[in-house]
Amino acid sequence: MSGRVPAQTLQLRSLVTASRTVELSLVDVDVPAPEPRQVVVRVEAAPINPSDIGLLLAGADVSQATAGGTPDRPVVTAPISAAAARALAARVGQSLPVGNEGAGTVVASGASDAAQALLGKVVAVAGGAMYSQYRCVPASACLELPEGARAAEGAASFVNPMTALGMVETMRMEKHTALVHTAAASNLGQMLNRICIEEQIPLVNIVRSPAQAELLRSAGAAYVCDSSSDTFMGELVEALQATGATLAFDAVGGGDLAGRILTGMEAAISAGAEYSRYGSSVHKQVYIYGSLDRRPTELIRNFGTAWGVGGWLLTPFLQRAGAEKVAAMRQRVAAALTTTFACSFTDEVTLAGALQLDAIAVYTRQATGKKYLITPNA
Amino acid sequence: MSGRVPAQTLQLRSLVTASRTVELSLVDVDVPAPEPRQVVVRVEAAPINPSDIGLLLAGADVSQATAGGTPDRPVVTAPISAAAARALAARVGQSLPVGNEGAGTVVASGASDAAQALLGKVVAVAGGAMYSQYRCVPASACLELPEGARAAEGAASFVNPMTALGMVETMRMEKHTALVHTAAASNLGQMLNRICIEEQIPLVNIVRSPAQAELLRSAGAAYVCDSSSDTFMGELVEALQATGATLAFDAVGGGDLAGRILTGMEAAISAGAEYSRYGSSVHKQVYIYGSLDRRPTELIRNFGTAWGVGGWLLTPFLQRAGAEKVAAMRQRVAAALTTTFACSFTDEVTLAGALQLDAIAVYTRQATGKKYLITPNA
Repeated sequence: MSGRVPAQTLQLRSLVTASRTVELSLVDVDVPAPEPRQVVVRVEAAPINPSDIGLLLAGADVSQATAGGTPDRPVVTAPISAAAARALAARVGQSLPVGNEGAGTVVASGASDAAQALLGKVVAVAGGAMYSQYRCVPASACLELPEGARAAEGAASFVNPMTALGMVETMRMEKHTALVHTAAASNLGQMLNRICIEEQIPLVNIVRSPAQAELLRSAGAAYVCDSSSDTFMGELVEALQATGATLAFDAVGGGDLAGRILTGMEAAISAGAEYSRYGSSVHKQVYIYGSLDRRPTELIRNFGTAWGVGGWLLTPFLQRAGAEKVAAMRQRVAAALTTTFACSFTDEVTLAGALQLDAIAVYTRQATGKKYLITPNA
Repeated sequence: MSGRVPAQTLQLRSLVTASRTVELSLVDVDVPAPEPRQVVVRVEAAPINPSDIGLLLAGADVSQATAGGTPDRPVVTAPISAAAARALAARVGQSLPVGNEGAGTVVASGASDAAQALLGKVVAVAGGAMYSQYRCVPASACLELPEGARAAEGAASFVNPMTALGMVETMRMEKHTALVHTAAASNLGQMLNRICIEEQIPLVNIVRSPAQAELLRSAGAAYVCDSSSDTFMGELVEALQATGATLAFDAVGGGDLAGRILTGMEAAISAGAEYSRYGSSVHKQVYIYGSLDRRPTELIRNFGTAWGVGGWLLTPFLQRAGAEKVAAMRQRVAAALTTTFACSFTDEVTLAGALQLDAIAVYTRQATGKKYLITPNA
């Protein structure tokens, strides 16, 4: 088996230094021989998700990044502000691999039946360190893609699909009946829109431009509110009244958007109701799951007392949901990989290509409509 | 029975007008004859709590208040900003009674045994509209004070004591083991400090001046952090490490204090731990239950993803806790009315006295150490 697997492989690394810089580079790492329950995956595709960018760039100022090294082994260095550095103290001096998820072909297997069964198969893996040419992972961490599916189609089959399904599950677990989503024209947002249409869950999509609004409407979204419009708050309250949404997932984080959603929910609930000195008794919740806007979150507390804002992260949600539920969710994703859970990429880069300054400048902007795929073996 | 009860009685009212002013006045209202399960209470003492001030002043600018009317029937008018007025639309034109709680003597009773049993007794009532000379309320809403207790001692036996006990109960229900409290030198804060000492619950008291810190230390508080000090954050993190507190109750609301508490909690939890890209997995919670600072809440999100900020209000907490628990809490308060749950007042005013501009200027500042008691029948 191991004839097709090189002894060493390239891996992308992120290092925060004591001099307050982040250094990105490619290093050679050994590919271990698989243990009985492990397989070695030749990584053919790994997306650059917003959740990867935090670990990769460590909050550095990429506009001041400088390039070094060689074309094959580029090294990028960027400064980190004093404020950002404080939260990174425990990272200093550790060369960390990056890449939450990816997909590729199983090229070597341990002796167990489960591992052997995957040999030659195209699998998706959410194993971390996926910005590598080869990864040795537990067979149980692999999701076999449907017959004929390409690695690129399965590369992003974990983070976004499980997050979108996790939002719907959270809605049910916490007794809400409709959803609000911000940055709704993102890959994740389009996916959530498709899920909600399938399941007939009312969804209020908040976007940041008329073009994004049009994109979602043409994908069948019933409620789209453009926060760049002068009439945004009025339209938001109208959509919140129509849907009864009292739960929002916010990828933006900073600024006043989370607070405005709570304000809108309270206005929608209170419309026509009697005056209540403490506001409505209906609990309104915003979960912040991203940080597209890194400014502080500003809450103008004009939405009564029955409200909450908090962090939301996929991993603890999956732990809360339990193994059985998670397995069912993954099978559902695999079965609809090219439809409901399809993800589109605008650019493909090699590991070295991901460390070019012009590429970094684009993918760190996290602009809707720009999504990079790393192809470590291309 | 009704021989001692006047047909009409004075009541303080707050009216928001369409011209964006709040108008405070005294009106005559009828005192109804009690139904079988009701009693009439001659209100002898009612505190001005922060929770009353919101309803009373409706967010008006009291520095621009003007006085009118007569000495016996003063009328105070103050302007409301456009922003504050929006949230008050449903109040316009409604003359609202004020006063969450108070105490007095039962001077008339309905025919039921429960009502008859209270006749002549000094009782505390959390019935609303307590800034009245007489109130007809259900006998079940009355808490009989211990033999010999004065009305002034029982006047504030509901809002602050139940809130302080509610914080401790919330801590237990949500699986925390220690508490943080802001504006900790307040009447409520001193009460919470006594409860936590009795129950050996670690409590981090956050105050705003050295004098307040001294006051709490002399009352036996082990952890006191002064937010006006340059060394505040370091001392806060130290206290959070020592106590393991992951739940805070914040009376301040505006500005960056809630966020700094979360930052401190995360720093305390992460100290010495391995780097975790998403922060610690320990849930950190701040409940905002007051609004001493009316500015927006500003959260600098450097405390990972396991966090929440939300509103907390006594009434929904009591509903969640259930009738049996609430009855036990009230009995506990009655039994320790002059010790653990003692409340001290610095000023006593009549209903007309509560509408003097100089008094309003003082009690709306909600300064620690200044607490007004209204004595409607003095």
